Amino acid sequence: MSLTMNKLEMTAYLAEIFPQVCQDFNIDALDMDGITMRLMVAARHLRPGGTVSGPSMFALADVSVYAMILSRLGPKALAVTTSSSMDFLRKPEGDNDIIARGQLLKLGRSLVVGDVLMFPAGGDKPLARATMTYSIPPNKIA
Amino acid sequence: MSLTMNKLEMTAYLAEIFPQVCQDFNIDALDMDGITMRLMVAARHLRPGGTVSGPSMFALADVSVYAMILSRLGPKALAVTTSSSMDFLRKPEGDNDIIARGQLLKLGRSLVVGDVLMFPAGGDKPLARATMTYSIPPNKIA
Amino acid sequence: MSLTMNKLEMTAYLAEIFPQVCQDFNIDALDMDGITMRLMVAARHLRPGGTVSGPSMFALADVSVYAMILSRLGPKALAVTTSSSMDFLRKPEGDNDIIARGQLLKLGRSLVVGDVLMFPAGGDKPLARATMTYSIPPNKIA
Amino acid sequence: MSLTMNKLEMTAYLAEIFPQVCQDFNIDALDMDGITMRLMVAARHLRPGGTVSGPSMFALADVSVYAMILSRLGPKALAVTTSSSMDFLRKPEGDNDIIARGQLLKLGRSLVVGDVLMFPAGGDKPLARATMTYSIPPNKIA
Repeated sequence: MSLTMNKLEMTAYLAEIFPQVCQDFNIDALDMDGITMRLMVAARHLRPGGTVSGPSMFALADVSVYAMILSRLGPKALAVTTSSSMDFLRKPEGDNDIIARGQLLKLGRSLVVGDVLMFPAGGDKPLARATMTYSIPPNKIA
Repeated sequence: MSLTMNKLEMTAYLAEIFPQVCQDFNIDALDMDGITMRLMVAARHLRPGGTVSGPSMFALADVSVYAMILSRLGPKALAVTTSSSMDFLRKPEGDNDIIARGQLLKLGRSLVVGDVLMFPAGGDKPLARATMTYSIPPNKIA
Repeated sequence: MSLTMNKLEMTAYLAEIFPQVCQDFNIDALDMDGITMRLMVAARHLRPGGTVSGPSMFALADVSVYAMILSRLGPKALAVTTSSSMDFLRKPEGDNDIIARGQLLKLGRSLVVGDVLMFPAGGDKPLARATMTYSIPPNKIA
Repeated sequence: MSLTMNKLEMTAYLAEIFPQVCQDFNIDALDMDGITMRLMVAARHLRPGGTVSGPSMFALADVSVYAMILSRLGPKALAVTTSSSMDFLRKPEGDNDIIARGQLLKLGRSLVVGDVLMFPAGGDKPLARATMTYSIPPNKIA
């Protein structure tokens, strides 16, 4: 199996369907082993105290797994988040990007499970981990 | 035990520390049994397809539990999200508010666990459920 | 919609397919609102220190949701656990049964999500909460 | 930082406090990078259909993280499971051991988070993933 959409195609596709996403996220790498997605931290991602907000980190994990799924199944695939679990491990400083490294643990016909570890740019101690499960509706891959 | 901050005090407090929150959330009810928090759905909460985004629902669950904790411990308490689990059950329509009903399952000295069910305004089939765990740093309650 | 299998039928069915289950669990109540399942705590459920073990509580939550699903879909349905989240809230004393109260949050065609709160028999402070997700394989309901 | 208890010391310690564990689990490797723990699959771990049961896999993940914590903090440390999330990815065949590979994502003063991937012995497609969070009670490390 090989990717149906590579990094450039995925970047263009996300820009088309999620225009706001372009301002928040950058795909640093995308291949069959997984994805490296960057949250380009800005003031709108912070919460009081100057740390990156939980919803911003949820969004980073979610878009990372979504992009991995579409990179395999193609842009016409439907994929809906059905569950997530996250652990927040360390305080994410507000003056540094966050790098998500994601991999797919399972790409089934109806369920896809992806794992994401998030690090500060340039650092190696994880800030958070997330598992996102997506459902692929039956007969909806055109 | 009774509440340290009631609904009006909590609304004022959130407005002070999270100014942007006032535009998104409204506390419909707050007492010792729990909280009813409303996400006032607007275009910025939607994702392609017109449904309410996952990060918006995460934020709703998170602020619901945060407000319950501070309503008990007072505005000087520190409380940090350490983990979350969410299940997305039904598609949240983008033209309707979302009502979160939260309760605290445990209010320990160092860990607090809150449960949240989210419903469409006026509906009784849950859209999502979430459990949020907060850590209360030791000796940090002034 | 009404139940396909009632409490007595479900008890007999579980005894047939999970003979060991009869020694561990008792269905105290089962109806369209949900289930009340009892873990009849014995020495084999304890861990050092005399508290009920995590795997025993996982099993209690899992069988509670499984029985709710089969009570709706009938004994020929296939249902496979795909994910779980649990929070352990208080220490479960080893000399008391544990009562699980479960409800189905969603009974979809391919995914079922059930929520379970566990209490000490005769007590009202929850010991643990769990959410279990089951997958119903397509075209496998005979 | 180095390990306080190595593989042999940990094996002996688990045998002392969890005598039943010796029959179920074997520590294949234990160092600062993490643990490799084997579930020696036997009839008592199976559920109808001949696959390894969910509670058995929960126990494997739980003991893996517990052993990693004690290998760092020493045998007198108290550590209590406070939450878990698991995803079941593929059917675990009942005639093959299961190998858990665990690492600690965070070893804080009061919270420890460990991640575990479980594989069939000799296989490289994950059967399940788990995250276990432990609480270390304050002032209880003798």
